[in-house]
Amino acid sequence: MRRIPPSLIFCISLLSAVAHGASVTSAPVPFEWKGADFLGYLAVPAEAAEARPAILIVHDWMGPRSYFEEMARKIAERGYNAYVADVYGTETRPGNAQEAAQAAGKLRGGDRSELRARAGKNLEILQAQDGVDPSKVIAIGFCFGGTAVLEMARDGLDLAGVVSFHGNLESPRPATREGSVKPVVLVLHGDSDPYVPEGEVQDFQDEMRKVRADWEMVKFGGAVHSFTDPAADSPGARYDASAARRSWAIFWDFCEEIFGR
Amino acid sequence: MRRIPPSLIFCISLLSAVAHGASVTSAPVPFEWKGADFLGYLAVPAEAAEARPAILIVHDWMGPRSYFEEMARKIAERGYNAYVADVYGTETRPGNAQEAAQAAGKLRGGDRSELRARAGKNLEILQAQDGVDPSKVIAIGFCFGGTAVLEMARDGLDLAGVVSFHGNLESPRPATREGSVKPVVLVLHGDSDPYVPEGEVQDFQDEMRKVRADWEMVKFGGAVHSFTDPAADSPGARYDASAARRSWAIFWDFCEEIFGR
Repeated sequence: MRRIPPSLIFCISLLSAVAHGASVTSAPVPFEWKGADFLGYLAVPAEAAEARPAILIVHDWMGPRSYFEEMARKIAERGYNAYVADVYGTETRPGNAQEAAQAAGKLRGGDRSELRARAGKNLEILQAQDGVDPSKVIAIGFCFGGTAVLEMARDGLDLAGVVSFHGNLESPRPATREGSVKPVVLVLHGDSDPYVPEGEVQDFQDEMRKVRADWEMVKFGGAVHSFTDPAADSPGARYDASAARRSWAIFWDFCEEIFGR
Repeated sequence: MRRIPPSLIFCISLLSAVAHGASVTSAPVPFEWKGADFLGYLAVPAEAAEARPAILIVHDWMGPRSYFEEMARKIAERGYNAYVADVYGTETRPGNAQEAAQAAGKLRGGDRSELRARAGKNLEILQAQDGVDPSKVIAIGFCFGGTAVLEMARDGLDLAGVVSFHGNLESPRPATREGSVKPVVLVLHGDSDPYVPEGEVQDFQDEMRKVRADWEMVKFGGAVHSFTDPAADSPGARYDASAARRSWAIFWDFCEEIFGR
């Protein structure tokens, strides 16, 4: 048997690592805006040779944290760039539900101009990163973040798709003009979510119908708020392994459809 | 080099054909019931060594035909048995929409005992076929067939799952008892379907909630009736390539979840 040169052995090891989807690099993305500091987080598939599609993740009311960073790395393992947005700013890192309600409430209140602006700024930051194809971004969000990405869709931002995981669906400024919602909209909804009443679901559907969006809503029977979050454990906000698994499967298919890969 | 015996070469060829998913055998399944003749159709993956899960397909109002037989073969290429049910009987093969409305109307009317019985008989026939694991059957149906498989779920039949593609959701005998709907229920619904009014969707959801079924509903914005059928081309019943593709993707994931393969 011929000897294999060490350089070839190195190449084979590298290919093997890539094949297992483990090769992801990540880095914090600090930026300043209107005098405040923000801290995003970018995970990138290491094998990327050309500009790639990206997923922008908007955190729930507890803010950016390791849970979403891990999610970003898992998404990068699939071959997409993934960015955890920071719509709070580094001064705001809630330590409990009360602080979280206050932080999210500030941005959800009023006409949501500030929420839209901050989400849009995070999108710009992501689009400017090396290796990101700025025309191929899907924004996804969880609970509060779901609300945020729907606001991004209503705001006419340049997104290919938005996905709300158990987010609130109502808005003080719903879309009204036909064609104004450009991204494909996917809503993953727990049918028994006590924080998203049936009337809100109806109003949202009417809004999407009126503007003739390309939209899809999935209702998971029996699931409540936060159903994808393994840490959620209250009667109204609880992890549901089945709804979580189905949601992610539908999400991956959504990415493949939109990005063609 | 040692000679490869001819029998092994034959085995290798067979395995190769199987790897391409092309190896499907199919056969008509005639049966008699209550003095009438019925004609089902079974497609089987040729590589099947042990008993396999099966998909039972209930036809739309136009009855069993080559369109559903081709669907069965495609499902068998995925490794599942697939059976096109005949709930009409061979005497009833509609040639146009008027005849189809009459044939389907007969079974949809009244208390649907006859529809339930015929669907159940087809399930028995499928479960008795060689190579079918009788405990692993998902029933799927299209339009009229969607209505039929929901009736099968309400009837307490031994199914692992039911999937309605753009079916009507109402029933003269809705399920009322908690736990009485055993299969996992998936409803794939065109949000603009003029033949399935919003009130019917609401009533169905209420029914599933009441009996605490494991259910999921997907609404495709803008899609109307018959959205998976490439031949459907009227304002209220039209093919929608996007909703069709998404439906099938969700369906394959549903099969993998339930069958674990």
